[in-house]
Amino acid sequence: MTRPVDIESRAALLERVAAYVLEHGLSDLSLRPLAHAVESSPRMLLYHFGSKEGMVTAVLRAIRARQLAFFDRLRRSEITAPAAVCKAAWSYMSDPNVGPMIKLFFETYALALRTPASFPGFLEGAVEDWLRFLADPLCTGGVSPQRARAIATIILATYRGFMLDYAATGDTQRIGHAIDVWSAALDTVKFDKDSLDAQQA
Amino acid sequence: MTRPVDIESRAALLERVAAYVLEHGLSDLSLRPLAHAVESSPRMLLYHFGSKEGMVTAVLRAIRARQLAFFDRLRRSEITAPAAVCKAAWSYMSDPNVGPMIKLFFETYALALRTPASFPGFLEGAVEDWLRFLADPLCTGGVSPQRARAIATIILATYRGFMLDYAATGDTQRIGHAIDVWSAALDTVKFDKDSLDAQQA
Repeated sequence: MTRPVDIESRAALLERVAAYVLEHGLSDLSLRPLAHAVESSPRMLLYHFGSKEGMVTAVLRAIRARQLAFFDRLRRSEITAPAAVCKAAWSYMSDPNVGPMIKLFFETYALALRTPASFPGFLEGAVEDWLRFLADPLCTGGVSPQRARAIATIILATYRGFMLDYAATGDTQRIGHAIDVWSAALDTVKFDKDSLDAQQA
Repeated sequence: MTRPVDIESRAALLERVAAYVLEHGLSDLSLRPLAHAVESSPRMLLYHFGSKEGMVTAVLRAIRARQLAFFDRLRRSEITAPAAVCKAAWSYMSDPNVGPMIKLFFETYALALRTPASFPGFLEGAVEDWLRFLADPLCTGGVSPQRARAIATIILATYRGFMLDYAATGDTQRIGHAIDVWSAALDTVKFDKDSLDAQQA
């Protein structure tokens, strides 16, 4: 009868560990102060997560699940036009509660660029999963897979760049205005196959 | 007569330190292995740079100077249309020699998001200097300052996002194609005041 209790305490512990990591980051993370802050012990953390690396992987997975939940809701909503998706994504990412997630995302990204093996699957997922998320509806709408991936690459890049800017400056007014201008431009560009072929002809 | 020799050796030392930092990154940087690798001593490094933080600042400034030199050449060239600037910037950033600079840039950015005081001026410069670089020619061309900053915000974001993608995936083909599509779209959008006002009307 111990397993259900273990599972529950792991979930509760993971939540506290995630909150600590969101506040303090990964670069200087060490088990002892973390264990103290979450009212646990290094031994208990290792019991639940196997290793520090396993713990970080679990934290990143939990945070990623929260982001995906938002984007899944977005997908199931009526919002599908690129410009509308951008605006919804901006209102999500400029929520103060999301700020620490953005910082942690870029910290993980930078650390993974240096030592990819310590963050298995992170970089691949950080790009490929979102490209699919953005490209699939375009393909369904008749855009060729290659073109859809190009458009998805552009939208992902711009969105990530706005996040980088916002994380550094917190300038909601300038970035919000830029997103308005960008959304208006996106709506006029119409990234469907015919109009792009016409542009390039 | 010692000063000229000191100055020369500091410059030579800085170059070796910068090469080491580009290869190994900042997250786990410590003086002793660095000093060994650059055939110096922690004492000599501290003599020249005052502190580890002073050394990192000098390295980042030296690397930034290299980037600015490229963009200054670009500015003095005939390339001024946003799309042409993007293509020139992409051919620069996809040069294998520039890869380590991009990784170090994002590493510094992430660390500075966590502890801005350790990287004085970095985040401000990383956004504001480039916004001015991109917005100034637009203002000269008659775009209002606020609109020029919005456009500069978009172009900077997209450029940074492409860099993030490229650093993670190295997928020159997909990103190069996305930049072609994006450049073609930029050319049709025409970010001048009248056409944007017309779009938003």
